[in-house]
Amino acid sequence: MPSIGTDSAYDKEVRQTADWLADKFRELGLKTEMIETCGHPLVYAESPKVEGAPTVLVYGHYDVQPPDPLELWETPPFEPTVRDGKVFARGATDDKGQMITHVFGVETYLKTRGDLPVQVKFLIEGEEESGGAGLKAFLNGEYDADVPVKKKISADIAVISDCSQYGPGQPAITYGLKGITYFQLNLTGPNRDLHSGGFGGTVTNPANALCKILAALIDNDGRVQIPGFYDDVLPLDERERAQFASLGFSDEEYKQELEVDELAGETGFTTLERRWARPTFDINGLWSGYQGEGAKTVLPAKAGAKFSCRLVPNQDPQVVQENLKKFLDELCPPGIKLELLPYHGAPGFVLSLDSPFMDAASRAIEQGFGTKPVFVRSGGSIPVVVDFSQLLGIDTLLLGWGQDDDNLHSPNEKFSLNDFHLGIKTSCFLLDELAKC
Amino acid sequence: MPSIGTDSAYDKEVRQTADWLADKFRELGLKTEMIETCGHPLVYAESPKVEGAPTVLVYGHYDVQPPDPLELWETPPFEPTVRDGKVFARGATDDKGQMITHVFGVETYLKTRGDLPVQVKFLIEGEEESGGAGLKAFLNGEYDADVPVKKKISADIAVISDCSQYGPGQPAITYGLKGITYFQLNLTGPNRDLHSGGFGGTVTNPANALCKILAALIDNDGRVQIPGFYDDVLPLDERERAQFASLGFSDEEYKQELEVDELAGETGFTTLERRWARPTFDINGLWSGYQGEGAKTVLPAKAGAKFSCRLVPNQDPQVVQENLKKFLDELCPPGIKLELLPYHGAPGFVLSLDSPFMDAASRAIEQGFGTKPVFVRSGGSIPVVVDFSQLLGIDTLLLGWGQDDDNLHSPNEKFSLNDFHLGIKTSCFLLDELAKC
Repeated sequence: MPSIGTDSAYDKEVRQTADWLADKFRELGLKTEMIETCGHPLVYAESPKVEGAPTVLVYGHYDVQPPDPLELWETPPFEPTVRDGKVFARGATDDKGQMITHVFGVETYLKTRGDLPVQVKFLIEGEEESGGAGLKAFLNGEYDADVPVKKKISADIAVISDCSQYGPGQPAITYGLKGITYFQLNLTGPNRDLHSGGFGGTVTNPANALCKILAALIDNDGRVQIPGFYDDVLPLDERERAQFASLGFSDEEYKQELEVDELAGETGFTTLERRWARPTFDINGLWSGYQGEGAKTVLPAKAGAKFSCRLVPNQDPQVVQENLKKFLDELCPPGIKLELLPYHGAPGFVLSLDSPFMDAASRAIEQGFGTKPVFVRSGGSIPVVVDFSQLLGIDTLLLGWGQDDDNLHSPNEKFSLNDFHLGIKTSCFLLDELAKC
Repeated sequence: MPSIGTDSAYDKEVRQTADWLADKFRELGLKTEMIETCGHPLVYAESPKVEGAPTVLVYGHYDVQPPDPLELWETPPFEPTVRDGKVFARGATDDKGQMITHVFGVETYLKTRGDLPVQVKFLIEGEEESGGAGLKAFLNGEYDADVPVKKKISADIAVISDCSQYGPGQPAITYGLKGITYFQLNLTGPNRDLHSGGFGGTVTNPANALCKILAALIDNDGRVQIPGFYDDVLPLDERERAQFASLGFSDEEYKQELEVDELAGETGFTTLERRWARPTFDINGLWSGYQGEGAKTVLPAKAGAKFSCRLVPNQDPQVVQENLKKFLDELCPPGIKLELLPYHGAPGFVLSLDSPFMDAASRAIEQGFGTKPVFVRSGGSIPVVVDFSQLLGIDTLLLGWGQDDDNLHSPNEKFSLNDFHLGIKTSCFLLDELAKC
């Protein structure tokens, strides 16, 4: 089912996919609803409330990335093909294959043990790969009918399988995500591009100013210089550092994979610590003046940049933004007009290693995969995790069954059938284990 | 004559212009030659050697800038039209109108006084606005026939009228030009664009590195930080500073014209001093990562910049380049591959205020314009001045009759007929005055 949500040519197929999923939920006896949105519909389904047991909210998405470039696929992206025990198809892992493990988990449970031991609510969207406007509006209460959204999807814990294991044979629980705060900075100097000979040395060059300003935002030890930036950072505790260290991450292999002669970043932390749990500053785009071939002796009128900080739990994107604004005003040289455009911001997320839900997930994985999971974090952001936290006051268990090399967003996306089956098994055990929380 | 040298659609018209000029020289009885080059021809002409008197080499160009955008011209660019005592046409000042004053000066002299008091050699090119490859090859000896170029165009002083007066009614001699050294810097980090969440904080971001490196090349006082950069700088003497100060340059008007709230540059120098006689560092272009709309969380694999230093007399572009290379190696952070591409370099030029040729030009201007000239410098570079200095060992008198607002390279280019006529008169007097040197 080519549910390419971002391409309106596939609107019909996207709708068919949502219908298939809703039918599947109805077949399982779940109370099922197709929630129409400004974009593709949300498929919502729930099992009956179980007194004295928690409610579990499973989130996933039924839309997929476009399959281009098609010529690089060994078999067609929408004709799932099994090779070497893996199924190759667009959406195999991201996220149809992983999402459906929870549907099949519920089906397996119902067929083998009868009633579910917990209430399960499924919220599956069709716009994860294209901005998620429909889900945002839904969470914002814009489609509230008889029951407000906050009550409708209320739960004790959320579960998402849209990430990956630590490696083949080594399942993981992702217990922390970074937040982000993203900006565009526009600098304007003179009212027009000037001849660098005729005018150089008399006015501030906005490109010079841009480099000065951006260079001042991070020091040579990789420490972000925005005042107060580290004040609220939740430090890594010894248990976490020991856990990271035990994963056997190889700096050497990482360097080889990226073809760099040295790694870099904030001093005093290992590569995994920096990657998963330390805030960063990265310029994402830069532009000014002449970018063509050869030489042009222009003193540009304008210069601009996009940059972002990945934040870690406890940092408030709003506070970072305010401190940044004040700092930029100090840094801005004479003769330059500065404009800061804030784009999206989201806080980080971390689930306590001591949470009973973590224990439950860990036990389920050990039963399903036959291996204890490791506890990892991620440098990326999953906005819906923050939404659930803010709207429902609940944490999210991030349980990935896929692998890092499953070619998400690339040709020849795949999913190991063994991981798929272990994921379904684990999903069953998870219902039992969560019932104990 | 639409002698748009850069547009091959006008090759015929360019040739016709060269032919017209050659015919004019022949009509004046000068020994005239059309020198074919890889591009448009050079028109060369000389009067007989005058024993005991200097030889003067007059350089100019007969090609013009393209006239676009045509719709902004009040009258067609190639139909010269007089309004308010000014002739409007492409090439009115740059450089046909100014160049021809010397031809008409010679004509006037011949018709009123008889034989010229000095030998005059004219070297007029057709590719000044498009790179000047033909002239370069000629000066390089590539078209040498019976006489080597060095002997053929040997002279005691060169004269160029391809600049402007200090202002209306205030003629000037431009006695100094800046040099230049221009570079492109390419930085490469990881082997592909990375997700800033997944990889940020573990490898050096080339855009971060670029800003750090470029910011280190100039300090907040506008001093260039390349080691040894100021070692060979010829300082401004008190006479020059007093001369600049006497020109009544208005920082306030300059700010208003450029719409900046403050001027900036190397501390300890006035705006004119910085503009004309202090070396500078300007970024001319910057690029990296995502430059489109909205946010993209990319850690770019590459970042690049074009930048240049305007040099002042006595600074050697080669030395600056070598010191820059060493400095960049020190500045380059771990995990970054750095490539420096040097583009053109040229030294600055300054003619001593005590030169007898300066005195001669000054007296000629006083007689022609009825006003003593002021002595100015320029932040720009005119490569042929350096070529003449290096090849022939001679200085150049830069005598501009036009005005700064004559719309060179813009629509409605113009030349005051009064300035034109005073230029011709001055050119006559100049022959007399140079004869005394």
